[in-house]
Amino acid sequence: MKPNVNYGLYLITDRACLQGKNLIETIEEAIAGGVTLVQLREKDASSLAFYEIAVQVKALTSKYGIPLVINDRLDIALAVDADGLHVGQSDLPASVARKVLGNHKLLGVSTANLEEALKAKAEGADYIGVGALFPTNTKTDTRWVTLEQLQSIKESVNIPVVGIGGIQESNALAVKETGIDGIAVASAILAAPSAKEAARRLWKSFMNA
Amino acid sequence: MKPNVNYGLYLITDRACLQGKNLIETIEEAIAGGVTLVQLREKDASSLAFYEIAVQVKALTSKYGIPLVINDRLDIALAVDADGLHVGQSDLPASVARKVLGNHKLLGVSTANLEEALKAKAEGADYIGVGALFPTNTKTDTRWVTLEQLQSIKESVNIPVVGIGGIQESNALAVKETGIDGIAVASAILAAPSAKEAARRLWKSFMNA
Ligand code: NI
Repeated sequence: MKPNVNYGLYLITDRACLQGKNLIETIEEAIAGGVTLVQLREKDASSLAFYEIAVQVKALTSKYGIPLVINDRLDIALAVDADGLHVGQSDLPASVARKVLGNHKLLGVSTANLEEALKAKAEGADYIGVGALFPTNTKTDTRWVTLEQLQSIKESVNIPVVGIGGIQESNALAVKETGIDGIAVASAILAAPSAKEAARRLWKSFMNA
Repeated sequence: MKPNVNYGLYLITDRACLQGKNLIETIEEAIAGGVTLVQLREKDASSLAFYEIAVQVKALTSKYGIPLVINDRLDIALAVDADGLHVGQSDLPASVARKVLGNHKLLGVSTANLEEALKAKAEGADYIGVGALFPTNTKTDTRWVTLEQLQSIKESVNIPVVGIGGIQESNALAVKETGIDGIAVASAILAAPSAKEAARRLWKSFMNA
């Protein structure tokens, strides 16, 4: 059985946003503020370090009953028995990931256009991330997706869609109006003075709009 | 069933040694020269690039009936149905890797002393790599193992032992006299003018000594 997922407020971790704050504590605050799903993303860690962090985050998300998805690394997802895996266009092909993961784990795929979205769904994705929607400081070589394109993708794939890229309190309502299922954020929560407060406000902006 | 492995001449790939040569062609030459086992090691590739290379190398090793082991990345090993995984001390713990791999895949562990060797065996390693034995240009922060220590480790663990680090034609006989099961090499084959000829000479030095 796959977990029953609320995609509403999807936290993607990014150590670069933490400015010295503790990752585990910050995730816990974010969950207290309303985060409904956590994706653990570690781009520079050794496999051992990634595994050890993932063990800690898994204990935390399990405690709060929140699904945990691992970015890119299927081996880490299996090693900690995470709820799923999220792959980008430079990671394992979704079809290959699905085959190794089996049918009881969530599989998410980052996409930037309708073609990629439909392909992801055909290859076994449970949900897709779509973006980048708005400029951020954290990414270069960004592929942009307009809100009109986002809405069109949502209307064309019948799996949950999460918007990503520069989403914050001020634009969350505009994103919601496209009809998608959730917003994925990193810096808007992790770099905020209070992760809990930032998550709470984002949750209100998107979920209560 | 695990493959029946000849550890005699164990090739570890390293793109930095290739000086522009094609990886797949060079591995094929090395196999023609007598390599008995291949470990695919990619430290800077994206998951997608690693996967795509691994698919090619798996097709090659299958063609010649040579086992293929993937360095570090259990997900890539599973994705291409490689014969096994090799982990270092900064990779997934051997016990965790064994649990995810199951009992039908090879698991190798890099070790540099008796304590690590015995721990690797207890955690499910099928074989261990032991080194570094001799200086090389390719590694910094090296932990050294003498031939006396190597022999002592071999006498204390009853699983196959492969020596690693700076092994070449000139010292292969001294390594063989420790009683270990095989020699692991990268540059001695990959950086040679002819990988086939270099492999053939190493094979003779170690296997025919
Ligand atoms: Ni069997």
